[in-house]
Amino acid sequence: MTTIIDGKAVAKKVNAATQTAVAELEQQGIKPGIAVIIVGEDPASQIYVRNKNRKATKLGMHSVVRQLPVTTTQAELLSIIAEYNSDASIHGILVQSPLPKQINEPLITMAIDPKKDVDGFHPTNMGKLITNFPGNYPVANTPRGIMTLLAEYGIDPAGKQAVVIGRSTIVGKPMAALLTNANATVTVAHSRTKDLKALARTADILVVATGIAHLITGADIKPGATVIDVGMDRDADGKLVGDVDFDSAQGVAGFITPVPGGVGPMTIATLMQTTVELAKWSDLSE
Amino acid sequence: MTTIIDGKAVAKKVNAATQTAVAELEQQGIKPGIAVIIVGEDPASQIYVRNKNRKATKLGMHSVVRQLPVTTTQAELLSIIAEYNSDASIHGILVQSPLPKQINEPLITMAIDPKKDVDGFHPTNMGKLITNFPGNYPVANTPRGIMTLLAEYGIDPAGKQAVVIGRSTIVGKPMAALLTNANATVTVAHSRTKDLKALARTADILVVATGIAHLITGADIKPGATVIDVGMDRDADGKLVGDVDFDSAQGVAGFITPVPGGVGPMTIATLMQTTVELAKWSDLSE
Repeated sequence: MTTIIDGKAVAKKVNAATQTAVAELEQQGIKPGIAVIIVGEDPASQIYVRNKNRKATKLGMHSVVRQLPVTTTQAELLSIIAEYNSDASIHGILVQSPLPKQINEPLITMAIDPKKDVDGFHPTNMGKLITNFPGNYPVANTPRGIMTLLAEYGIDPAGKQAVVIGRSTIVGKPMAALLTNANATVTVAHSRTKDLKALARTADILVVATGIAHLITGADIKPGATVIDVGMDRDADGKLVGDVDFDSAQGVAGFITPVPGGVGPMTIATLMQTTVELAKWSDLSE
Repeated sequence: MTTIIDGKAVAKKVNAATQTAVAELEQQGIKPGIAVIIVGEDPASQIYVRNKNRKATKLGMHSVVRQLPVTTTQAELLSIIAEYNSDASIHGILVQSPLPKQINEPLITMAIDPKKDVDGFHPTNMGKLITNFPGNYPVANTPRGIMTLLAEYGIDPAGKQAVVIGRSTIVGKPMAALLTNANATVTVAHSRTKDLKALARTADILVVATGIAHLITGADIKPGATVIDVGMDRDADGKLVGDVDFDSAQGVAGFITPVPGGVGPMTIATLMQTTVELAKWSDLSE
């Protein structure tokens, strides 16, 4: 029996809590604000940004979308980030990826005030996460949303073998840190890993974030394992599929996230959750 | 046939390069400076600090030891760090562990200017390491010294299975990041790991940093593996031993670091190397 993890339902629950938190902050005269900066007209990015803006507005937040031309220079983008860094109505700043090639992405990441780094990609926040630093700081939303899913389904990583396939800053690395902090024994696998499928079969918790459609099939899954599919891929027919072959994984996995409807809805819900937290923390002394 | 990795010999080589770099910087009017702050009279810490000071002086650097009483307050320590942060003659600041209990260690770590963070423990530097950030930043000296040992002995981590036992900020976590950045498939194990010894046997590169004398024996090592022993433990007779039982590991491991004479000498040599780099980088524009 495979339990399908319902990301939509959990996201709804997270959003409800966010809405309550927004209302509570309003009583204190704080309206959480998010600024999303988008450079260029990439159609997928346009959709993501529109969805984030709608969700933030719907939850009662202040939401700004800053559309910039694809020809925006590094200096112009830095100056806009500086503007939001010092804008008290904005608690979270997000620069939508991908950026055009004239922009030095690491410099942009570094330019965002770590206290407004709603994506959690700033090295200071990543370093705090990896060292399990005390105190409040934002954590990358996709892996954090996955931790929420695990908690909602009563899956405790402590003492388990976890395998994270993919070592991106956005998913793989913060995911590994969160699972290690939760006392799992974590292996980070990637394109240079030998015998990936044998490794995948050792996992009690398998997180797949490679962007390769159907890389993992049922035969690569330990019976009863929890399988988290971060992929948003297109198959030969243009259909949205995950990095895991859902059909063959069913009956093998103990728990699995579908694509769509698994990790996806959690990322945006967690982004909203983080924005509200940043607003709350901005009101606290150091 | 087990090759014993000669940490003393490699450290000597690193120190010779450091001495040359110091002489070159002198030509540009820069004398690398390190400030080591020690709070209290812990005998082991006193020895470490004395050794660091001697080595720095011997290599031609400016070396300051700031001995503080065990009763030093948080505010006093922060003010001394601030003093060195703005002292142009100091390029590296190290606060010796352990600190007395009235001191909030994470706050101290955060207070050191990341550009003078010679230990590489500041979250910003840890975050850069974990995300393999471009540019120059200090990296924790023990794991970095281990990478130097691997390189000296022609051991390329790419495509290899690496197991790091221990998840400290000082060794385990930055070690895992360095090995992942070098394209190994890395597992971080710790006290909550189940069947640690079976996991150890899967490792082509096994790094043991637990502080448990002789935790790993020859039976836990994959034949031909590279075994790096970070332990500095005492056995029942008070003799200095490692986390690996050296005698039983011999003949099984392909390469092994002895204790003493393996990782230990590399840590201090790498600390000196990092100090010189910080001095060099301080002269570059952002």
